[in-house]
Amino acid sequence: MAPPSQKFELKTPKGQGKDMVIRDSIFSTITDVFRRHGAVTIDTPVFELKEILSGKYGEDSKLIYDLADQGGELCSLRYDLTVPFARWLAMNRDIQNIKRYQIGKVYRRDQPAVNKGRMREFYQCDFDIAGTYDPMLPDAEIVRIASEIFNGLGWKGRYLIKLNHRKILDGIFTSCGVPNDNVRAISSAIDKLDKAPWEEVRKEMVDQKGLNPEIADKIGEYVIQKGKKDLLSKLMEDKNMVENESAKAGMKDLELLFDYLDTFNVMDNISFDLSLARGLDYYTGVIFEIVMVDPVSTTFNDRTSDPSQGVGSVAAGGRYDNLVGMFSGKNQIPCVGISFGVERIFSIVKSRMAAENNFDMIRKNAVDCYVMAFGGKGFTGLLKERMSICATLWESGIKAEFLYKTKPKLANQFKAAELNGVPFCIVIGDEELAEGKVKIKEMGLRDGHPEKEGVLIDLKDIVEQVQKRLQQKKNPRIFPIFTDS
Amino acid sequence: MAPPSQKFELKTPKGQGKDMVIRDSIFSTITDVFRRHGAVTIDTPVFELKEILSGKYGEDSKLIYDLADQGGELCSLRYDLTVPFARWLAMNRDIQNIKRYQIGKVYRRDQPAVNKGRMREFYQCDFDIAGTYDPMLPDAEIVRIASEIFNGLGWKGRYLIKLNHRKILDGIFTSCGVPNDNVRAISSAIDKLDKAPWEEVRKEMVDQKGLNPEIADKIGEYVIQKGKKDLLSKLMEDKNMVENESAKAGMKDLELLFDYLDTFNVMDNISFDLSLARGLDYYTGVIFEIVMVDPVSTTFNDRTSDPSQGVGSVAAGGRYDNLVGMFSGKNQIPCVGISFGVERIFSIVKSRMAAENNFDMIRKNAVDCYVMAFGGKGFTGLLKERMSICATLWESGIKAEFLYKTKPKLANQFKAAELNGVPFCIVIGDEELAEGKVKIKEMGLRDGHPEKEGVLIDLKDIVEQVQKRLQQKKNPRIFPIFTDS
Repeated sequence: MAPPSQKFELKTPKGQGKDMVIRDSIFSTITDVFRRHGAVTIDTPVFELKEILSGKYGEDSKLIYDLADQGGELCSLRYDLTVPFARWLAMNRDIQNIKRYQIGKVYRRDQPAVNKGRMREFYQCDFDIAGTYDPMLPDAEIVRIASEIFNGLGWKGRYLIKLNHRKILDGIFTSCGVPNDNVRAISSAIDKLDKAPWEEVRKEMVDQKGLNPEIADKIGEYVIQKGKKDLLSKLMEDKNMVENESAKAGMKDLELLFDYLDTFNVMDNISFDLSLARGLDYYTGVIFEIVMVDPVSTTFNDRTSDPSQGVGSVAAGGRYDNLVGMFSGKNQIPCVGISFGVERIFSIVKSRMAAENNFDMIRKNAVDCYVMAFGGKGFTGLLKERMSICATLWESGIKAEFLYKTKPKLANQFKAAELNGVPFCIVIGDEELAEGKVKIKEMGLRDGHPEKEGVLIDLKDIVEQVQKRLQQKKNPRIFPIFTDS
Repeated sequence: MAPPSQKFELKTPKGQGKDMVIRDSIFSTITDVFRRHGAVTIDTPVFELKEILSGKYGEDSKLIYDLADQGGELCSLRYDLTVPFARWLAMNRDIQNIKRYQIGKVYRRDQPAVNKGRMREFYQCDFDIAGTYDPMLPDAEIVRIASEIFNGLGWKGRYLIKLNHRKILDGIFTSCGVPNDNVRAISSAIDKLDKAPWEEVRKEMVDQKGLNPEIADKIGEYVIQKGKKDLLSKLMEDKNMVENESAKAGMKDLELLFDYLDTFNVMDNISFDLSLARGLDYYTGVIFEIVMVDPVSTTFNDRTSDPSQGVGSVAAGGRYDNLVGMFSGKNQIPCVGISFGVERIFSIVKSRMAAENNFDMIRKNAVDCYVMAFGGKGFTGLLKERMSICATLWESGIKAEFLYKTKPKLANQFKAAELNGVPFCIVIGDEELAEGKVKIKEMGLRDGHPEKEGVLIDLKDIVEQVQKRLQQKKNPRIFPIFTDS
């Protein structure tokens, strides 16, 4: 599969600065929650040995980027942050438990679809809990973390945490009669049910994967079901399920998990969804996927009438108890984790801001104070005075700029300040400076405001005067992007 | 050159969490200064078209990593952040000026030397000013930024900003008689003068690069000189220099720059060093390099008696007025920038902290509050109570953890809190809970302190009680790492 040729075009040159402001806000919303739950961050290389990534991603392995053989080992670019984390755990045997988060880029040789937030190089934000603990406690905390993050983004009531258990799924498959060696393939087919109708998925299972049509129909009766505790109770009365050891273990897990999720006050957004399967090979227990549920779809994520055109899941994860052992042999460390798709979250936030006309309110840079000069005939430009005032402001941590012109026009200086939405200007002139004064002017004040034309202050007080005004001035909000009802 | 085989070993498994805490502090010290000066951040892909990187790095081009040819274009991993930035500017023609910063990983097929902070994948922090402005103003601000960053790291008086000008260097070479087509090669040789004695460099120029020995000696008289304005004045009286157009232009630049650096109050740490050449092809004007000057060398960066064993430069940069035009043709945008070597800065900070015994003071994670339970006979573990209290704390943004055990021992809970240096514990028990009370306990109080055994508070006030105590408690400092005199 050859990548198309437009790869290096950045699709959003305009507003790039604002895009990064939004992206930074998303990163900090996410990492604040991770840190709130005790996570530390680690860093792993962008490339891994090719063999480390082999056999971990099922049908998606063909999307892995390889490095050229320039001598030395064969390497590939990481496909996700989970496998490198497991490899790292396997190599650092003194670490038997850790809550870690990581923000990093991953690489997939996929068809890009920028407006859906799907690119070949993109950030993932991962949080994982590794260690041997009492059942379902880390799993419950991961779900709680997802809720805190999406609530923090202002999406309360607008997302759904779809949840399932690999052992229940496998129980369904085997009790319906799927041969063991066909379970993962059937599982992959089932996972497409969020995008394709049952008939299509059934066809794939029967025609492509050679499943007996009767078995397919039995599976169909299970996997179309969604619910919460009610669905779990129903399964727990199902003889096929109760007699299947795998299903039984999965149901016991979910019973405990739902109880904990009640305690964490996050059951509202849960959907126990038997069609959720997740494509990756390494999951062994609870799996989940967070999707947007959008009451105002057209303005929200550029959806057309076809729901499969949406941005898909915005976070996903699950329990993978055997992955570390694949690298370390005996030293098995159970793990559960979640990965947030920042690009998709970004696409949603940005289109939402555009719909609510908030995008223009975001400042391009963080400058608080533009230092400018004016003067009549014989105007020198007051360059060194501007530089020196900037140096004073910088020294106190105040974000300041001046125009890189020896003799700038006042209009050009105001224009530069306005372009970036700088909230305050310091205007200096010969006469005022001679008296030890400068003018401070808040930008964008309405006509008739008493300080519209600025206020003269003592130059020696400039730092405290600027700081005082900055504290009174609020920044435009990025989150929440939805108005709470 | 085949990479050695131990690449994927992370050399510092122990204290990885603390390492990231230090690294994060360095990143935020640096980016705070960048933002203070009005920079916005942009992001470019980790890989670029192979041809984009060709012919930009002089003798170091052999260190570029290529991606495998899996169909599609030939790509390479970025070698620095400067060339991708110039490529980005060339492609985004609506942007004619920008102050941008970027933190990202770059890749070099080099021999790693971890204790010197030299690795094959490492972070760079770049700041660049692109645009057509009055001379030397952006250049002066870049030097000011470097000073603010190293002062912010607590290195005041311990670093030196070496500075030179490509046009002066070229003027020296041509006026001494170096043929035009040998100038870059001779320049590369001169750049080694910080690590090798003059005799060795002279030998390289004469024996390997075929330079006339007399010319080499003439060059030698120039390039051993270091100074400030005094050296510039001396050069400005040198007939060879004054009559050389290139040297003249360079001297005019530096005269103005030094004047501006005075205004910015940063001349103290400047060394005008005629041996500074910088290896990269793309510089056209002022070049600079920041090195540590260390009065306490052995504890400082693991140096042996050989100064070349040190960590080398911690930041470097210069003016590159023609690089954007190499990609865009007519649309030439002059640029000046600086790149901070975070790994090297990290090596220095870390070894310095170790020397001052500050490393142990860094907390492994950010948790403020460990929620634990205790009880006598019939102790249930109070799991849901712990979970529910954590949820309350998380809801208010307080960083909290509990042990993933249904019935934990009190000692194990304290141990977990101590291990991460958590400052406060909430201890709950049946009797206290029945009265609506919990105990809050500050860790590490001295014997005899009135609150040594903790304080009973109302459960309903828990958030404000924790917040109040957190505000009073100071975090251990990471910077400055040197005690100011």
